[in-house]
Amino acid sequence: MLMGPDIETLIQKISRLPGLGPRSARRIVIHLIKNREQILFPMLTSMDNVLKNVKVCPICSNIDTFTDMCSICSDSKRRGDVICVVESVADLWAIERTSCFSGRYHVLKGLLSSIDGQGPELLMLDKLQKRCKENSITEIIIALSANVEGQTTNHYIRNFFKRSSLLITSLAQGIPIGGELDYLDDGTLFAAFSARG
Amino acid sequence: MLMGPDIETLIQKISRLPGLGPRSARRIVIHLIKNREQILFPMLTSMDNVLKNVKVCPICSNIDTFTDMCSICSDSKRRGDVICVVESVADLWAIERTSCFSGRYHVLKGLLSSIDGQGPELLMLDKLQKRCKENSITEIIIALSANVEGQTTNHYIRNFFKRSSLLITSLAQGIPIGGELDYLDDGTLFAAFSARG
Repeated sequence: MLMGPDIETLIQKISRLPGLGPRSARRIVIHLIKNREQILFPMLTSMDNVLKNVKVCPICSNIDTFTDMCSICSDSKRRGDVICVVESVADLWAIERTSCFSGRYHVLKGLLSSIDGQGPELLMLDKLQKRCKENSITEIIIALSANVEGQTTNHYIRNFFKRSSLLITSLAQGIPIGGELDYLDDGTLFAAFSARG
Repeated sequence: MLMGPDIETLIQKISRLPGLGPRSARRIVIHLIKNREQILFPMLTSMDNVLKNVKVCPICSNIDTFTDMCSICSDSKRRGDVICVVESVADLWAIERTSCFSGRYHVLKGLLSSIDGQGPELLMLDKLQKRCKENSITEIIIALSANVEGQTTNHYIRNFFKRSSLLITSLAQGIPIGGELDYLDDGTLFAAFSARG
């Protein structure tokens, strides 16, 4: 046996995290073991806190430490008439970092994908519809990635709310800030042209 | 506050691990929280086991789960007359994976580096010398990286054992397997030419 079973198990577990592999997992585990008191022990405490305290918000599916609902749903200073639909909590955090939106969120459990067998139940649209009615929401902003799954899901959500009086909007598509024309793909250039203003 | 303090603390800690940054740390933390029972909890248990059970071998400085000495030092089937000097446990694991060496190891605490203020005390050569005398070692293999720090340390170790009767060898330098001549750097090509045989 090359190394103790405990070390091997930890390396295996870490190597399965997103973006990591066996080599980076080995580096991380050696780093953790070398800095047992300064890094490994505090990391353990920190993970334990997250395990104990972090919950999924029953209203918007954001993850946070809370008692009844997440800090965004319980913040009375935020606009109560707009809901932004995002694919994941990572996207919610990305939008929050820009400070461009002060409404509330609806975090999907995933996007529609026939290849991965992901159906409309992941979108929890009945829950969203109920929430819109109960809170007199006027606008739903669909903030999904501009890939096939994102656009399919966008279309499905728009179709679902077709008969409602809600304003349904999507993120603008066009040239990214700093983007140079001749490096852009044809699709983006076409979209930017079509949506010119 | 964008997210709970527990989540933020964990992201910060993970982002400081080698090879990771804020973005990958966020992805990992979301993955951990989403898979709380299947991934986060087992990871916690696994880290706790490592924290409790893994020690540094008093003889060779390998890390392992053991009572008196590591599995390599206590394995009586391994050759007892050769010691291989490596920079880190990662390098020890790399050599073990090749199964090309059946002796024992001496794991350095770092390489000589005047820029980083790393002096000869990291090499623990007195300990290595004592071990060589007590165990009638005949050969020391210096298996260090072919960079400036590695070669400086190699030179220092050779100089330290100059008056002893020990055979001191280093890893061969040359073209890596699968390497193509015209993509090699000049230094490697020169070394490969000089050491031809």
